[in-house]
Amino acid sequence: MKSIILAAAASLSVASAQGIPDEVKETADFLLRQGLEDRVGYQTTEDLTTEVGARLGGSEAEARARDWAVEHLEELGFSNVRIEEFTMPYWARDYEYAAIAEPFPQELHITALGNSVGTPEGGLTGEIVRFETLDDLIEAPMDNALRGKIVFVDEGMTRTQDGSGYGVAVRKRSGAANEGAKRGAIAALIRSVGTDEHRFPHTGGMRYEDGVRKIPTAALSFPDAEQLQRALERGPVSVTLDMAVETKQEVTSGNVIAEIPGQTDEIVVIGGHLDSWDLGTGAVDDGAGIGITTGAAKLILDHVNETNEKPLRTIRLVYWGAEEVGLLGARAYAEQHRDELSKHAVAAESDFGAREIWKMDTRFGEDKIGLGRDMIRVLAPAGVALGNNQAGGGPDVTPLRAMGVPVVTLRQNGWDYFDLHHTADDTFDKIDPDELAQNVAVYAAFTWMAANTPGGFRADDAATPSE
Amino acid sequence: MKSIILAAAASLSVASAQGIPDEVKETADFLLRQGLEDRVGYQTTEDLTTEVGARLGGSEAEARARDWAVEHLEELGFSNVRIEEFTMPYWARDYEYAAIAEPFPQELHITALGNSVGTPEGGLTGEIVRFETLDDLIEAPMDNALRGKIVFVDEGMTRTQDGSGYGVAVRKRSGAANEGAKRGAIAALIRSVGTDEHRFPHTGGMRYEDGVRKIPTAALSFPDAEQLQRALERGPVSVTLDMAVETKQEVTSGNVIAEIPGQTDEIVVIGGHLDSWDLGTGAVDDGAGIGITTGAAKLILDHVNETNEKPLRTIRLVYWGAEEVGLLGARAYAEQHRDELSKHAVAAESDFGAREIWKMDTRFGEDKIGLGRDMIRVLAPAGVALGNNQAGGGPDVTPLRAMGVPVVTLRQNGWDYFDLHHTADDTFDKIDPDELAQNVAVYAAFTWMAANTPGGFRADDAATPSE
Repeated sequence: MKSIILAAAASLSVASAQGIPDEVKETADFLLRQGLEDRVGYQTTEDLTTEVGARLGGSEAEARARDWAVEHLEELGFSNVRIEEFTMPYWARDYEYAAIAEPFPQELHITALGNSVGTPEGGLTGEIVRFETLDDLIEAPMDNALRGKIVFVDEGMTRTQDGSGYGVAVRKRSGAANEGAKRGAIAALIRSVGTDEHRFPHTGGMRYEDGVRKIPTAALSFPDAEQLQRALERGPVSVTLDMAVETKQEVTSGNVIAEIPGQTDEIVVIGGHLDSWDLGTGAVDDGAGIGITTGAAKLILDHVNETNEKPLRTIRLVYWGAEEVGLLGARAYAEQHRDELSKHAVAAESDFGAREIWKMDTRFGEDKIGLGRDMIRVLAPAGVALGNNQAGGGPDVTPLRAMGVPVVTLRQNGWDYFDLHHTADDTFDKIDPDELAQNVAVYAAFTWMAANTPGGFRADDAATPSE
Repeated sequence: MKSIILAAAASLSVASAQGIPDEVKETADFLLRQGLEDRVGYQTTEDLTTEVGARLGGSEAEARARDWAVEHLEELGFSNVRIEEFTMPYWARDYEYAAIAEPFPQELHITALGNSVGTPEGGLTGEIVRFETLDDLIEAPMDNALRGKIVFVDEGMTRTQDGSGYGVAVRKRSGAANEGAKRGAIAALIRSVGTDEHRFPHTGGMRYEDGVRKIPTAALSFPDAEQLQRALERGPVSVTLDMAVETKQEVTSGNVIAEIPGQTDEIVVIGGHLDSWDLGTGAVDDGAGIGITTGAAKLILDHVNETNEKPLRTIRLVYWGAEEVGLLGARAYAEQHRDELSKHAVAAESDFGAREIWKMDTRFGEDKIGLGRDMIRVLAPAGVALGNNQAGGGPDVTPLRAMGVPVVTLRQNGWDYFDLHHTADDTFDKIDPDELAQNVAVYAAFTWMAANTPGGFRADDAATPSE
């Protein structure tokens, strides 16, 4: 352990020697302090969620969001504002209904999971078989014991600051249908993947395994999962499920891009995703990320315009499309920009609500870890500590990370993020303007440093960008 | 002021002289302590809300609730368990939909207000005219300025412990439609009468004024009212409203009654209302009141059975029907029991959720105010203070109060009651068993004292009940 610490210390001193120049840190500090007073980010989130509202990937509403975005970004004065289109399969809910049929007839609040098939017309009715966890279902024998039944995976989710409860709980979103179908079930219900106790079912994408029968699948709200559990304590329960969905083979979506041109052909990417689920107005997911990164980029743009001091690298603001339905915009971006990915110095997406950033994780070359420490000296006054060097970077930078692009996660407090996530209750009123401004501040300072640190963040990449 | 205090002190000493006998207070104290451990009340609420669920006045579900109640009350061992039927007009929502039509097309979450007419088939669309408060609308000129428009009364509600914010805010529930129609509006929307910030519209009854055109009326959830307000800040907004309702002239409802027979023909009435709105499962409104008063009565019944000590007065547990839709069960009860109302010693309804009781208001004869002080000596250990002598007694005892029956309000902490009230989110999981048990304890102790205090609670009624 000691040798690792020494090695880290050694690399720090090397990195510091050729680290972030003082004048870059000074400007970053200036942007940080300005950002704490920012309202452009908050206003951006308000405008998007008010003037467009819900904007499902591939929908006409998402197209309106792109038009709104182009107008907004041009109005703010960014360069090279454009839509980069791609095509995608389309899924939308049409209607959904569930009720206890016997012995206590009453409606249940559900929502279809994204990509689910519908039920036969008129619905289906089956006896509920409850599993406490997805693992219990996976361990159940493959003997068709669930033939004609509706499987109910009643697993809960743990509330955590870093959102780590999600990764565990979300497995059931696909798993309930796939594992249920393998055992003969006709439909699958899950307790919503969420931490609230309100009557909002949480939607979210699911994927059918190849070769497995596709059965309709939906999430129950917390109170309805509790209700179904109580009913089951009293004896057998049958439920009626009636769902219809709409699908299209190919529709148009797109990423919206805006830039602050740099002195070199290297690029720093920040952004959020423009699409949302259909139930809420996509405020914390991810109108906030759009607002935060736009506010940050706008602060930098104003600084650049005032000082005529171009950043070393181009700062590219990306509003990814169709994230919720499978990172489709992210994949399209990586594909469309394949030839310049080696010029992507670093990427970071804001997609975890609007609460304060408390930690910065990096994924830099091992010999560049010291640059993270350097950055934290600037970000610490805003309450940001240094995390590890295993950052994910955000869902939409996943394909970039896979191609070797360094990434950063500016981790937000996610304590109550999954109360609202993917529900009808994800609306603008939930966002605190001062907390969102802290995000703008941190993103602005980080992005400025990312765009102006000589040598970049990849391992063994000591050369400054070619001018 | 001093003379009033002296008078009160004088009446206290008189009342004490012929006040609550020590052995009655001792039993009340015993019941109070037992009640704090009670689970019958909580279980009753659980059973009703789980096994019946929502139970709109006059509906088939309310009929199932009556059957459930009779079985439950007989199982608990009460006497004279019966349904007292009455007939009533019926109203139910069929479907409801609202959306911003222009300029920002998106769905709004609404719910029809009880008794509203539907829209023409296919819905109606009109420009929104917003009023900050109902009074602003009332003060608007009667010049048909709202012709063809949809009026939007955006008044908020103040959160209070005693629920007093409700009385102010609820006026708009009828007022928006009536005052809007007088000025030519084609529909009326209100910001929900509630204190939460979730995407749950709050329903609730409304009444059309005689001679005023009936226009459809609905409530927006908090986030949707905020959204509409933000949209209006940007310019003119038109909304589409599409609602259908079902009405019947005459259906059957009923009150369910159970008793612990007393030694005299005098009666003490406690209870809650059995019906609920259709959106939630009616847990805090009013499954809790059913559970609380049933738990209290059952504690007394067990005591009576163990000691063979009959109360002086009959304790009558009433589950009123069709409260939400206009106190119809309460009116029927008063009518059907008109001849014995003079024998009703005191009445109290629990209809304000399941949080702790913190205050007891009475409405006793002026010379009997001292009996309230006497009772508080027993109830104080549970955290109950004495309030005033202007108790309402609860919605369903209003007709009894009007006929001179003394009433008591055991006031619950209503701080968050209007977060859930009349929404889909009014579900059993919101109830804390220990808080509900405190209610059972206080009701049991109060009811025992009410049933065994010689001389009763009416003014100038010094006579003990005839034996």
